[in-house]
Amino acid sequence: MKRLWMLMILSAMALALAATMPRAKLNQENSPNSPVYTSDGHLKFPIQYREWVYVTSGIDMSYSANASIDRSMFDNVFVNAEAYKAFVQTGNWPDKTMLVLEVRNAGSKSSINKTGHFQTDEILGREVHVKDEARFQGKWAFFNSEDGVIGKLLPREMDCYSCHEKHGAVDTTFVQFYPTLLDIAMKKNTLSADYLKEEAGK
Amino acid sequence: MKRLWMLMILSAMALALAATMPRAKLNQENSPNSPVYTSDGHLKFPIQYREWVYVTSGIDMSYSANASIDRSMFDNVFVNAEAYKAFVQTGNWPDKTMLVLEVRNAGSKSSINKTGHFQTDEILGREVHVKDEARFQGKWAFFNSEDGVIGKLLPREMDCYSCHEKHGAVDTTFVQFYPTLLDIAMKKNTLSADYLKEEAGK
Repeated sequence: MKRLWMLMILSAMALALAATMPRAKLNQENSPNSPVYTSDGHLKFPIQYREWVYVTSGIDMSYSANASIDRSMFDNVFVNAEAYKAFVQTGNWPDKTMLVLEVRNAGSKSSINKTGHFQTDEILGREVHVKDEARFQGKWAFFNSEDGVIGKLLPREMDCYSCHEKHGAVDTTFVQFYPTLLDIAMKKNTLSADYLKEEAGK
Repeated sequence: MKRLWMLMILSAMALALAATMPRAKLNQENSPNSPVYTSDGHLKFPIQYREWVYVTSGIDMSYSANASIDRSMFDNVFVNAEAYKAFVQTGNWPDKTMLVLEVRNAGSKSSINKTGHFQTDEILGREVHVKDEARFQGKWAFFNSEDGVIGKLLPREMDCYSCHEKHGAVDTTFVQFYPTLLDIAMKKNTLSADYLKEEAGK
């Protein structure tokens, strides 16, 4: 009987512990998949982003026809799983969305590869686009991380803000280049008025 | 006192229920991230693969120097999360690993994009490389899925088998093109003898 009691007390303790877990998960500030800031307003870079949901990749993409490219680069986009799930349901990004853009060197002619490009371990850049409605004017902010540890807040005057606001298909993000998400946005009618006007005018 | 008893009994029941969950998870046949076969030996295509862990992308990769390419194509590789975690720990793929290769059309000059390529919603191919030690000669098999529903087993005589066995850096897989995994394989000493010999001979 004593052992049964002990087992039940242990069970109750374990259950009480387990019961605290969902609450901790909902506490966005403590979740590693939510933005965490430094005391001076920068972003702790989400180092686990490669385990997030993959959005898309591009190569040598430029918004200028005269871009001179001396080396080929891939860009890969990832999003935290919570934001991805919300987008699939609603066609829009929830508060605390984080999109990570990773730029990688494009290698060629290695091992048995003869043509085309593959991705190498050389990371050439990392940016994070964060939605934090209460924190940022325009709801979103960009951070650039050179070291993969801290993301430096990019000033609101930079072109990336106005360009994303004007041309982003959904909520200042380039969903027009996200093949599995564009279709969802179309079905949920969340494409921005500016984007629809731009596409109609072509 | 009665309520405390009830609480403890419920706790014990809940805990007993929770204790069965890890076992259910280990029952690979019931997990949607493990291979499931049709009665005629083909594979049920893992439709949720875009939510798996992203491995890498390439563009227009060919193992022949004379490959003629009339259109650009991206290839994206994904792996089930259980296999990814095991690889990070051991540098090798566990039984029931599934690697999905998705080939997508590479678009250009759309929206504000002027140069380079982005991925479109046009899927040009899907292949699955499955490790199932008890089932396949050589432990692995390839499946090709045209419809994204069923993966047709590719015969063992096809070149993909011998090429992967001879040139794959780790356990018949092309980890030499997987930027975040190659480093792990090097540290864990899991690169194949043939691959190391090939690299040393260059």
